[in-house]
Amino acid sequence: MTDARPYSPGLEGVVAAETALGKVEGERGQLLYRGYRIGDLVEHGTYPAVANLLWTGDWDPNHRLPTAPVPDAVMTALRALPSNAKPMDALRTAVSAWGATELLTYPPTPEQARGLTAFSPSALAAFARLRSGKEPIDPDPSLDLVPGFLYQLTGEKPDAGTARALDAYFIVGAEHGLNASTFTARVIVSTRSDLASAVSGAIGCLKGPLHGGAPSEVVEQIHQVGSVERAEQWVKDTLDKGERLMGFGHRVYRAYDPRAAALRKVAESMEHPPEWLALATAVEDVALRVLAERHPERALKTNVEFYAAPVLMGVGLTPDLFPATFALARHAGWTAHVIEQAADNRLIRPDARYVGPAERDLPA
Amino acid sequence: MTDARPYSPGLEGVVAAETALGKVEGERGQLLYRGYRIGDLVEHGTYPAVANLLWTGDWDPNHRLPTAPVPDAVMTALRALPSNAKPMDALRTAVSAWGATELLTYPPTPEQARGLTAFSPSALAAFARLRSGKEPIDPDPSLDLVPGFLYQLTGEKPDAGTARALDAYFIVGAEHGLNASTFTARVIVSTRSDLASAVSGAIGCLKGPLHGGAPSEVVEQIHQVGSVERAEQWVKDTLDKGERLMGFGHRVYRAYDPRAAALRKVAESMEHPPEWLALATAVEDVALRVLAERHPERALKTNVEFYAAPVLMGVGLTPDLFPATFALARHAGWTAHVIEQAADNRLIRPDARYVGPAERDLPA
Repeated sequence: MTDARPYSPGLEGVVAAETALGKVEGERGQLLYRGYRIGDLVEHGTYPAVANLLWTGDWDPNHRLPTAPVPDAVMTALRALPSNAKPMDALRTAVSAWGATELLTYPPTPEQARGLTAFSPSALAAFARLRSGKEPIDPDPSLDLVPGFLYQLTGEKPDAGTARALDAYFIVGAEHGLNASTFTARVIVSTRSDLASAVSGAIGCLKGPLHGGAPSEVVEQIHQVGSVERAEQWVKDTLDKGERLMGFGHRVYRAYDPRAAALRKVAESMEHPPEWLALATAVEDVALRVLAERHPERALKTNVEFYAAPVLMGVGLTPDLFPATFALARHAGWTAHVIEQAADNRLIRPDARYVGPAERDLPA
Repeated sequence: MTDARPYSPGLEGVVAAETALGKVEGERGQLLYRGYRIGDLVEHGTYPAVANLLWTGDWDPNHRLPTAPVPDAVMTALRALPSNAKPMDALRTAVSAWGATELLTYPPTPEQARGLTAFSPSALAAFARLRSGKEPIDPDPSLDLVPGFLYQLTGEKPDAGTARALDAYFIVGAEHGLNASTFTARVIVSTRSDLASAVSGAIGCLKGPLHGGAPSEVVEQIHQVGSVERAEQWVKDTLDKGERLMGFGHRVYRAYDPRAAALRKVAESMEHPPEWLALATAVEDVALRVLAERHPERALKTNVEFYAAPVLMGVGLTPDLFPATFALARHAGWTAHVIEQAADNRLIRPDARYVGPAERDLPA
């Protein structure tokens, strides 16, 4: 019996879900959350307001969400992890342990999403301190989520510019349609499982470099450039050697990545702009010009990672915390997709084609 | 711009992967692992031999795999969990914490699969004891995986018949093609993430009742029947009331579920058959006859859950441990699929159709 069904490796072009959350318009270079442009959201909103928009559909620019305390059971688990554990593994474990203590029910709710999104920054900050021999810091309920995260990470309340820059990063990272991790979260909850199962699965998926990327490579690249004066020569030398420039080009965006545009705008407005920033904008300007000269046929434009790296470095995060910080930002989108999936649920279960040995007897 | 792409809710009938592992033949009532019939594997093999077959393609009926110790960091996390945590949540957290301590590299290997499959029974047994105020028991390297799990759970080495019955359950639960949890594992590793991320995601997916099922309902049903003499009347009364008989019918199998057949055979050969068993076979015989009389047009046959429940009760497991024990058995298939996915990887990322508001300005 032959199997005539078409095989869709990677499910490319297969529509697996309908969503009212994120719309990615690659040709135009636009990203919409529930219809609102990402640039407008960064300009007028905060991450908690954007998360609330994704969960509920309501736009309240004054919506607040302080970070939440880490339950004792989860803190004990984080203390026990080896200091060389990867932050993504620690965050995935913390979210799973949180789910084990919360006894979550189905269907997932905005209240559950709020709870998890407020918990995870505290958990990541705690792990980052513990692995350096420092004690975790309790949430300060007077701070909103992103400055609260920075406070629990560093022990100091961030200045307004620093908090604003990271908040903008959280907004542009909050949601991006049906990527692999968001799809993972929807598949998991489609069995009527719970929110923590879905998000810990999504974190494990985002951990892969084909999805979470390698933001530390952009940092390394800016290190290599070293100074604004060297930018042009370095870009040309790198392309002459046939090496790839990090932070340019995107699978979907043919025009300038709207998230990069929003982050550049915020980065340029920072009160204490880090050295990285002047260098990053110089490298970007040179790189776009040289790339356009050499490859006019390609649409290589700056992508979000190019500016994410300077912003994350600028607020004091070490590169090995970048992927887990991206995961914190994506909590809003993951949890909103989980709520959306459960609201009109159908078990997600594709088929496989068997290509193994024909029926046979065991060897004697 | 209209979106003309076809929407495949649930991805039903979409071929998302090619696999040489499990082949489910619903019409014939056959299940093959790498071409070998499930009945033959149960008759001539053990769970470690079957797991090794799935990982490597080699059939060695004498292959052994004792359970592995729980790393200190993971045991600390398990001790910290509340005693009312769900066993599936505890197992998901343990696998995630194990991954955080193991520093797994990509691609996943049979050696990693062996390590995780040997670890998880010890972790679940430890949690089951800790929540009852008992101390965990170290692995006994002289015991193979399934008797080792029972020993660590109960503190007593199981008799041969009991171990054999649970081993058969592990074999029939090891693999079943591209169900939702196995698909989750493949999506996660398709980003070049790691084995523990994939399996902890799969556990979270299996936790949902639409996938992991509700084996405790079969136990409840047999409780209600009470005695062999009452079986016929109870079955008729239940159907008269329009209620559903648990453990009959399957989405794929139209003929007798080959896993149920293998389990009934083993259950009937148990040295100390539990009371459940006589009752279960009596209920099955009556139910199949009455169902065939009343619904000759339907192909309602016994499914694997019908015999899983008596076997799991028979070896001393409480119903709330059934789903997590199923997850232990499925480790072999999950990890084999993860290895297979990585060997010829392509990022799994379907599309979504946006059905939300059109582009709009933020409210003033």
